[in-house]
Amino acid sequence: MSEMIKSKAAIAWGPGQPLSIEEVDVMPPKAGEVLVRVIATGVCHTDAFTLSGDDPEGNFPAILGHEGGGIVEAIGEGVTSVEIGDHVIPLYTPECGECKFCLSGKTNLCGKIRETQGKGLMPDGTSRFYKDGQPIYHYMGCSTFSEYTVLPEISLAKVNKEAPLEEVCLLGCGVTTGMGAVMNTAKVEEGATVAIFGLGGIGLSAIIGATMAKASRIIAIDINDSKFDLAKQLGATDCINPKNYDKPIQEVIVELTDGGVDYSFECIGNVDVMRSALECCHKGWGESVVIGVAGAGQEISTRPFQLVTGRVWKGSAFGGVKGRSELPGIVERYLQGEFKLNDFITHTMGLEDINEAFELMHEGKSIRSVIHFDK
Amino acid sequence: MSEMIKSKAAIAWGPGQPLSIEEVDVMPPKAGEVLVRVIATGVCHTDAFTLSGDDPEGNFPAILGHEGGGIVEAIGEGVTSVEIGDHVIPLYTPECGECKFCLSGKTNLCGKIRETQGKGLMPDGTSRFYKDGQPIYHYMGCSTFSEYTVLPEISLAKVNKEAPLEEVCLLGCGVTTGMGAVMNTAKVEEGATVAIFGLGGIGLSAIIGATMAKASRIIAIDINDSKFDLAKQLGATDCINPKNYDKPIQEVIVELTDGGVDYSFECIGNVDVMRSALECCHKGWGESVVIGVAGAGQEISTRPFQLVTGRVWKGSAFGGVKGRSELPGIVERYLQGEFKLNDFITHTMGLEDINEAFELMHEGKSIRSVIHFDK
Repeated sequence: MSEMIKSKAAIAWGPGQPLSIEEVDVMPPKAGEVLVRVIATGVCHTDAFTLSGDDPEGNFPAILGHEGGGIVEAIGEGVTSVEIGDHVIPLYTPECGECKFCLSGKTNLCGKIRETQGKGLMPDGTSRFYKDGQPIYHYMGCSTFSEYTVLPEISLAKVNKEAPLEEVCLLGCGVTTGMGAVMNTAKVEEGATVAIFGLGGIGLSAIIGATMAKASRIIAIDINDSKFDLAKQLGATDCINPKNYDKPIQEVIVELTDGGVDYSFECIGNVDVMRSALECCHKGWGESVVIGVAGAGQEISTRPFQLVTGRVWKGSAFGGVKGRSELPGIVERYLQGEFKLNDFITHTMGLEDINEAFELMHEGKSIRSVIHFDK
Repeated sequence: MSEMIKSKAAIAWGPGQPLSIEEVDVMPPKAGEVLVRVIATGVCHTDAFTLSGDDPEGNFPAILGHEGGGIVEAIGEGVTSVEIGDHVIPLYTPECGECKFCLSGKTNLCGKIRETQGKGLMPDGTSRFYKDGQPIYHYMGCSTFSEYTVLPEISLAKVNKEAPLEEVCLLGCGVTTGMGAVMNTAKVEEGATVAIFGLGGIGLSAIIGATMAKASRIIAIDINDSKFDLAKQLGATDCINPKNYDKPIQEVIVELTDGGVDYSFECIGNVDVMRSALECCHKGWGESVVIGVAGAGQEISTRPFQLVTGRVWKGSAFGGVKGRSELPGIVERYLQGEFKLNDFITHTMGLEDINEAFELMHEGKSIRSVIHFDK
């Protein structure tokens, strides 16, 4: 395909404004690029964060969305790893396989297109989206709030066609982030004790990961009791609301676990909670993983004694998962019934109603709303 | 031996006061305890920290000293792991082999006698030192500034008699702490890049550890240029003085190493330097180990983004080394010539001159002063 096409898309014209559903022009994929028809996309807190204007790296006007599932519609010159008709999950953390990071074997943070992606552009420094001749920025290299989007080949994980894209789209961000932090970053082992702070999509996914890892105790913490039923259903053994205690929640957990947990996960983006998560870990070996993204300029603190006495503070992005080489395997585990995704999908709607998805999220009424483009 | 004996000792009567050389009464070892004749002891910054009065856990009057080498003089009831005449290194981090910590296989922080040791007492809650009938506190479970001292059996590493106690006493604290942090806590691998902040005894020992681990680049950082000759002699490939740069030292190191080092070590106890040490690590995999002990109440800070993008913040006490099971092996490696200790010993003196050792340390003129009791 070498011609421009029309696509339905939700445009973020500026911070704080509702998304506007419009028809945009999508340029054909250049060399190494792929045109994808998005079938479904989740709406994630990170989209809301950027839309709010608090994201210092946010660019406007842009087409947001980064948790999608789609089908390859056309490929650019030299593309060899996917072909038309393949089912794919867009990756905001690509995997080029060639850069220092990919070759290190130690991280999933591919550096190949980081700079242009951060600027809302394709690797050649231009956009594939236009509205009345004006370029519209890409977002996190994905822009799944457009029915048709263009991505670099290295930003696509090819997955089993049997997997329903309306569900596995969630593996494009939240679910993989939570599960991966438990399984890849912390490497929770059978019998371990775990504390999970924040029971949104990522926290609940971390519970799934801990359950799959056969953790002996999974303590779920949230200030909203209404999250506890699902948390227990997914495997949490204890649910704690910090509002019910007069003392710091880390002290409560240390007492509850005879010294602290083996692993903790912060799934909110609150720097005070990050401290609690570290300090509820057991002396000598407890590890805390920061998953949540804090506001610009915010800092974490603790007494260094916490580290000197054996606690470890680390973090995780996209669950430490290398998208192209590892995500297809996670989809297979899903297909084999190792975990479910529909527990997370509290609402589905067409693109026209996407602003409602943001409202539901802000009101704490949804875990995930999934946009179906054919609705 | 079931009788009280007399011993020459340096008593710290109160914070900020010079040590007073006096004759003290040493009670015989009780069950599970051992009387040790100290042959030599290093003088460490931690002794000075407690003597200054800044250590919130400091007790007075006390007999300080925790970096010694000695010979078993008598054993209490039930002691089986050492016998009279054995050469031993006192351990401020004991190894009982039975507690939750020892059994975890994940830490060297034995918890068996932590509480009484922190109070300056033997496990039964009393002291073995008296002066004119007044009890004198133990210190870090060692009190090596007394020619005769009593320790729990679990606080003694039995070492090869061929090793000169005047040198291997340094393995009782500083040298093991620095080398162990590199080899046990960080597990630096061949070819890795390393930054070491602070070139006192611990920092220099970390350089030795990095050299033994065959690190490809060892960057040594200090604000005192006079430390650089020895650092290079021990294996540092680059020596950097932050005073020579207008920008934060972490930026200098990131530029120098094309993105940051694989491992960094803070060997000072300065919370600002701890931050620099973390932030000079490479995105995706860099690990920073806090070794230095900060002042009471001080805190470390950073942006959580540093962790989310793959850096790891950890700490180490006594180099993560389990004293009784691992220190004898380190002594063997010393005897086989894998590393030297006499580079560290800039001054030796009798106990009578111990206050001079503190002065030399405060003036930055010594790396280690070693007290010889027979001098």
